[in-house]
Amino acid sequence: MDLPHGTSALIVTNDTVGPLYGAAVAEALGKRYPVVHTVTLPDGEEFKGWETLQRIFDALLAHGCDRKAVLFALGGGVIGDMTGFAAATYMRGVPFVQIPTTLLAQVDSSVGGKTAINHPLGKNMVGAFYQPRLVVCDLATLDTLSAREMSAGLAEVIKYGPIADMEFMDWLDASMDALRARDRAALAHAVRRSCEIKAWVVGQDEREGGLRAILNFGHTFGHAIEAGMGYGVWLHGEGVGAGMVMAAELSRRLGLVDDAFVQRLVALIERAGLPTKGPVIDASDNAGRYLELMRIDKKSEAGEIRFVLIDGPGKAVVRAAPDALVREVIDACCA
Amino acid sequence: MDLPHGTSALIVTNDTVGPLYGAAVAEALGKRYPVVHTVTLPDGEEFKGWETLQRIFDALLAHGCDRKAVLFALGGGVIGDMTGFAAATYMRGVPFVQIPTTLLAQVDSSVGGKTAINHPLGKNMVGAFYQPRLVVCDLATLDTLSAREMSAGLAEVIKYGPIADMEFMDWLDASMDALRARDRAALAHAVRRSCEIKAWVVGQDEREGGLRAILNFGHTFGHAIEAGMGYGVWLHGEGVGAGMVMAAELSRRLGLVDDAFVQRLVALIERAGLPTKGPVIDASDNAGRYLELMRIDKKSEAGEIRFVLIDGPGKAVVRAAPDALVREVIDACCA
Ligand SMILES: NC(=O)c1ccc[n+]([C@@H]2O[C@H](COP(=O)([O-])OP(=O)(O)OC[C@H]3O[C@@H](n4cnc5c(N)ncnc54)[C@H](O)[C@@H]3O)[C@@H](O)[C@H]2O)c1
Ligand SMILES: NC(=O)c1ccc[n+]([C@@H]2O[C@H](COP(=O)([O-])OP(=O)(O)OC[C@H]3O[C@@H](n4cnc5c(N)ncnc54)[C@H](O)[C@@H]3O)[C@@H](O)[C@H]2O)c1
Ligand SMILES: [Zn+2]
Ligand SMILES: [Zn+2]
Repeated sequence: MDLPHGTSALIVTNDTVGPLYGAAVAEALGKRYPVVHTVTLPDGEEFKGWETLQRIFDALLAHGCDRKAVLFALGGGVIGDMTGFAAATYMRGVPFVQIPTTLLAQVDSSVGGKTAINHPLGKNMVGAFYQPRLVVCDLATLDTLSAREMSAGLAEVIKYGPIADMEFMDWLDASMDALRARDRAALAHAVRRSCEIKAWVVGQDEREGGLRAILNFGHTFGHAIEAGMGYGVWLHGEGVGAGMVMAAELSRRLGLVDDAFVQRLVALIERAGLPTKGPVIDASDNAGRYLELMRIDKKSEAGEIRFVLIDGPGKAVVRAAPDALVREVIDACCA
Repeated sequence: MDLPHGTSALIVTNDTVGPLYGAAVAEALGKRYPVVHTVTLPDGEEFKGWETLQRIFDALLAHGCDRKAVLFALGGGVIGDMTGFAAATYMRGVPFVQIPTTLLAQVDSSVGGKTAINHPLGKNMVGAFYQPRLVVCDLATLDTLSAREMSAGLAEVIKYGPIADMEFMDWLDASMDALRARDRAALAHAVRRSCEIKAWVVGQDEREGGLRAILNFGHTFGHAIEAGMGYGVWLHGEGVGAGMVMAAELSRRLGLVDDAFVQRLVALIERAGLPTKGPVIDASDNAGRYLELMRIDKKSEAGEIRFVLIDGPGKAVVRAAPDALVREVIDACCA
């Protein structure tokens, strides 16, 4: 483990994770940095905005930190995204380290260099591409994570199978119970393989021109669910769970995969403790509302919705689909 | 002139420059972009902060701008720095173009890729390195600039001579009256040569590890003047004017240049309409106060003040100097 050089460290955490792991991290960093400070932010996606970010800058400046300070993000994706953006912009860039403590953050958000905060008019609208110097995943921290957050993280683990690696999907079939029981060896493999696949994809397309989009498998439908239900009602991973079912079903109806593949994916998602049906978000025209929400999602260009589809098991493709077919899928997959 | 591709343009300007040049720029851009929007910010360094930046994001989102939007900074360094930072971070980066309308912005702030906003606890504390796709200098816009702002910009022009190019200094000696009269041909040469020198320096050291520091000739003393008098009392360029005299005098006392060189620089600064003496900012211990302010300036490392000195005409060196000598210089150069 090669920590970046620096004359001080600032741990950024929140009021849930800080009390659990803050002291241990501060103690460990105290052996490496002359001074270690901590700033504790309120917990929640609703605090992933400028006001909270400003508290990181306030702490840095109040402690007289210069460009030799190193930031440490101790928490889930919210803390990671905010701390990364603060590091990208404080004095035009200081080093930072990710210590992700949710499964989602360990397998997804801490890898790839995307950092951001939300704007009242849109999620992750202000941010930067900025790589951490190091990502430290301590699987033991997942012991305190709620079962619901674990399942949400598993959605992001599962996605890597259909889009890139059917052997990993086989392994997931065999290991899902162990993962939910937080078996360390199983978690270690899941986190490692997920990061490898994400790093491989991002390595080919850091700025999201093409291939990186396949990481959004299940996300087009998932974002519509999150937005349609009101943010926070469904967790992101829950939307992705039901969304992957819809995207797989759309792939099947386009003749890209067979029914057995879809059934297998549905069973895995269910065993992860995730919903396999989307919610009805509009009683009068549910499919219409989904379509409308997907069209305003930032990934759609000029009103055309781009779906990440499975083009035979283990391979993803990004393409549009006829509205009528998408409507059929939504009708079949919501309850 | 090769404007970046985009589906929309957003002109960012302020309530001084917008009324003068906004319509002409909007008309020109209308020929190239399907939609052109304008956001007009309040004028002043005190608005170079998050609240004002947020108004740029608000405008982008309200108009439904995606990554294909192009930002145009129409104004001085304040507008350029803020617009550049907004472009660096909106959806993690959109293209932007600088249309600098002050001499300082044309010869300095629009070149080099530094963007930033202020934090209540420090100037330019939050920002990014982010290059504009294009810088468009229209010398005609300088006609409406106040004489005081022209002189402030000339300070940044003058600095390029002593640190890098004595031929340019000769030319400035011969052309100062033409510059102050806003002779287009003279301005064209001053802007071009200044940008060439800055681009050459920055090209060798984009992230400010070493050489780039020489661009701060006169700035160590100048920042102390600005901060000591209260921001806005002395213009930045005025502080740099008096600061260059002090830095040159310190170089002389260290045996790096002769008295004739210092006298020549003082005369040029004076002809530019700039102060050649620093203000007394503390009646009881003026030199002590200067030293204190310079030590808290972000360029000083571990309490040691690094001065940009002239190491023979046309060549700069960055080094420390004995406190006693610095005190003598301050005593000799303030009134
Ligand atoms: N940068 C990227 O590439 C990327 C990718 C995906 C998601 N994201 C972002 O990540 C965020 C979601 O991340 P998340 O799912 O980790 O949410 P989160 O950070 O809100 O964490 C979920 C909850 O778990 C708590 N928690 C975290 N670690 C814990 C632990 N060890 N024990 C007990 N409780 C713990 C948190 O305090 C929070 O209440 C979103 O803002 C999303 O935009 C970013
Ligand atoms: N990014 C960099 O590398 C860099 C370098 C130097 C300075 N800066 C920044 O630049 C800023 C100072 O820039 P500035 O001196 O241009 O100040 P400024 O932007 O405040 O402009 C000075 C004044 O002139 C007005 N003005 C601008 N153009 C005009 C015109 N054509 N006619 C009439 N009035 C006009 C402005 O509205 C303002 O009132 C500071 O914030 C400083 O931090 C940045
Ligand atoms: Zn996701
Ligand atoms: Zn300057």
